[in-house]
Amino acid sequence: MSKQNLQPYKGARDFYPEDKAFQKWMFGVWRDVVERYGYVEYDAPILEPTDIYLMKGSQEIVDEQTYTFEDRGGRSVTIRTEMTPTVSRMIAGRRQELAYPARWYSIPNLWRYERMQRGRLREFWQLNVDVFGLVGIEAELEMLQIVDDIFSAVKAKRSMYEIRVNSRVLVNTVLQQAGLRDEECASAIRLIDKMQKMSAADFAAKLDDLTGSKEKSKQIVEFLAAKDVTELDLFLTKLESASALKELIARAKQLGIRNVVFAPDLMRGFDYYTDIVFEVFDKNPENNRSMFGGGRYDGLVGQFGAEPVPTVGFGMGDVTFQNFLEVHKLVPELKSSVEVTVISPLTTGQEGIDLVAIARELREEDVNVAVDYTGRKFDKQIKAADKAGSRYVLIAGEDEAKSEQYTLKDMKTGKEEKHSLSRIISIVKDARKK
Amino acid sequence: MSKQNLQPYKGARDFYPEDKAFQKWMFGVWRDVVERYGYVEYDAPILEPTDIYLMKGSQEIVDEQTYTFEDRGGRSVTIRTEMTPTVSRMIAGRRQELAYPARWYSIPNLWRYERMQRGRLREFWQLNVDVFGLVGIEAELEMLQIVDDIFSAVKAKRSMYEIRVNSRVLVNTVLQQAGLRDEECASAIRLIDKMQKMSAADFAAKLDDLTGSKEKSKQIVEFLAAKDVTELDLFLTKLESASALKELIARAKQLGIRNVVFAPDLMRGFDYYTDIVFEVFDKNPENNRSMFGGGRYDGLVGQFGAEPVPTVGFGMGDVTFQNFLEVHKLVPELKSSVEVTVISPLTTGQEGIDLVAIARELREEDVNVAVDYTGRKFDKQIKAADKAGSRYVLIAGEDEAKSEQYTLKDMKTGKEEKHSLSRIISIVKDARKK
Repeated sequence: MSKQNLQPYKGARDFYPEDKAFQKWMFGVWRDVVERYGYVEYDAPILEPTDIYLMKGSQEIVDEQTYTFEDRGGRSVTIRTEMTPTVSRMIAGRRQELAYPARWYSIPNLWRYERMQRGRLREFWQLNVDVFGLVGIEAELEMLQIVDDIFSAVKAKRSMYEIRVNSRVLVNTVLQQAGLRDEECASAIRLIDKMQKMSAADFAAKLDDLTGSKEKSKQIVEFLAAKDVTELDLFLTKLESASALKELIARAKQLGIRNVVFAPDLMRGFDYYTDIVFEVFDKNPENNRSMFGGGRYDGLVGQFGAEPVPTVGFGMGDVTFQNFLEVHKLVPELKSSVEVTVISPLTTGQEGIDLVAIARELREEDVNVAVDYTGRKFDKQIKAADKAGSRYVLIAGEDEAKSEQYTLKDMKTGKEEKHSLSRIISIVKDARKK
Repeated sequence: MSKQNLQPYKGARDFYPEDKAFQKWMFGVWRDVVERYGYVEYDAPILEPTDIYLMKGSQEIVDEQTYTFEDRGGRSVTIRTEMTPTVSRMIAGRRQELAYPARWYSIPNLWRYERMQRGRLREFWQLNVDVFGLVGIEAELEMLQIVDDIFSAVKAKRSMYEIRVNSRVLVNTVLQQAGLRDEECASAIRLIDKMQKMSAADFAAKLDDLTGSKEKSKQIVEFLAAKDVTELDLFLTKLESASALKELIARAKQLGIRNVVFAPDLMRGFDYYTDIVFEVFDKNPENNRSMFGGGRYDGLVGQFGAEPVPTVGFGMGDVTFQNFLEVHKLVPELKSSVEVTVISPLTTGQEGIDLVAIARELREEDVNVAVDYTGRKFDKQIKAADKAGSRYVLIAGEDEAKSEQYTLKDMKTGKEEKHSLSRIISIVKDARKK
């Protein structure tokens, strides 16, 4: 085999032990927070029948952005690109038996065939959090609380990011009040979704094209310029659709989530969102971008032939979150799971030193113990243990075996002391708490 | 969408929360045991360049048993079928920087395109445990210890399964002593590998065909009939190749692993094994089959263009292990992660009851709390909480809110008592220890 075969598939990552330790820590934070809110974990196959991605207008995405192929039985299968269709399929499949509200989360591995750029790989992991069966804004509020708690769990300050919220129902009301017909509303939403990627003049020209009237455009632009949801009172005649959004923002602020802001131009790409949507933006100048988002999608479960189920959820990717942690210097120092490495100038069996027995005694007390077994020079054994991140090294030479007092070297401080095995067990367990 | 779309892809599994809870428990047992031996977790992409599976004689497997397709850039990619080529690629990629012995484990999701049968799905998960850099049988012994500890951790008795061991070096020595040439040895190994699937007469005829001599066949059959590794002393003239195997079995028995047996006909399918191999068999009459195995494969890392690295490892699948647990009635009762469900006749905001605030107080003390929020009838809320596996229900009605004494219903015993929130926190935490 040639050298290039040492690399993983392009756009995907190998997780060497130090990378995996970071991932485990991140997933652990996610799991702790969402379980605190009563969410239970589920999973599903990484391959799905392609059908479930073929919702209205999705053919293009399937054709261009997915790993789709025929299996040996001629069925079209797709490596999942997002979890929302899968979880909707699963809920629809047990629509009758499930208890509602159903709070579900998952951390699936997802693949998208796309150009690589910062925060985007072809392969990533995504925390998916969804609550099924709640119609009130308590569901949306809970999502904001969870987001807030996740950031708080990694010691991020609320000034580091903001949570932008909007309502699709509200946007539709505004567009209808401006006199747009249904198809025009859909086009306007798509245009507004791309607004941040074009100049103001360009946007204005395209909007005029679409509405065919400066007066109509003006109303829409006024709405898009609103900085606070309460401003809407000034120029909207029908206010009902704004009240849920107002209440959500007010209640989030009451809970201390001060970084929630009204963003009238926030649409979210996916067609399935039906009402309130939100997106979390990194405010660091080095990484000033949308990180992730979610919203209400009451119609998707119903598309699987079941009764519709009101649903609110969000998905948060590991790569973007890792970027956030890095630019804000929030990546913690992580410990290796190896607590003790037993080293010896002798291999087991020689001279009556039983390294297996020493390790077994520690393991029986739940200490994580590696044994070197190579019998090579001490300094090489110590160096290897250090490289592997072992917290302690236990030296078992002839003298130690005779006296049953083993040298324990603390790899953090470099200190060496002789102790009995039972004392060593206590020392190692105490070090866990630090 | 039609009804059939509610099913996952054929041969793959949806993990509803109760299934996922079982998987998490199983993976937790695996992780605890292997980390106790100093193994650290790694991972890699589920898609690999097809090349890494194209080792000698593997084209047929790739063609018939894998999910292989071309990506949009014309590269052939394969959904990984086993982790061994991947981990060998990763070790080869950092051959110089790594500390040895390197103890690595992973629990990858693997896919094989095969006929479905008991214990075999197209999609499964597999614990992979490998130690790199050890030449002595301490490595093999450690694998047997880990296997023994995994079974012990799920309360399996040693009488429920056995660990069969053999040595490829030993088999080759026997075949050479019988006068077989190298190609004939390889053919004989493949024949012996299939021995259990044919009649004795059929095997004898095929062996005679291969050796071309009754005398040669007799020596091989005598070896295959050996019940104990010490019997080999009687008819083998060169014993060195048996001594490592003898020592391994003796030392395993000293450690109490009494269910290790010598199995001269054990070959293991994969070509990459170079010396000692082992396989774990379920002894339950309902599930009397090989569950998993491993062995030494000193040559594989070297195939990636790096220096060879001595390696011993095994892989253990989730489906076969689950079957074992089921037939031996070792599946434990698992708790839901939901500890308390707050229910109320009122939705938040009404009548001054702040369900969010109650939940928050409990969550701040690390209690996992779901809130019903539907305001529907009490019995429906209690039923749903029970179905979701919630350990307790906290009832927050008007009276409770006024008195700040909330009714806590224990869903296991049915008992109801009024307590302050701080008392409720203590009760829930105490219940964790039971």
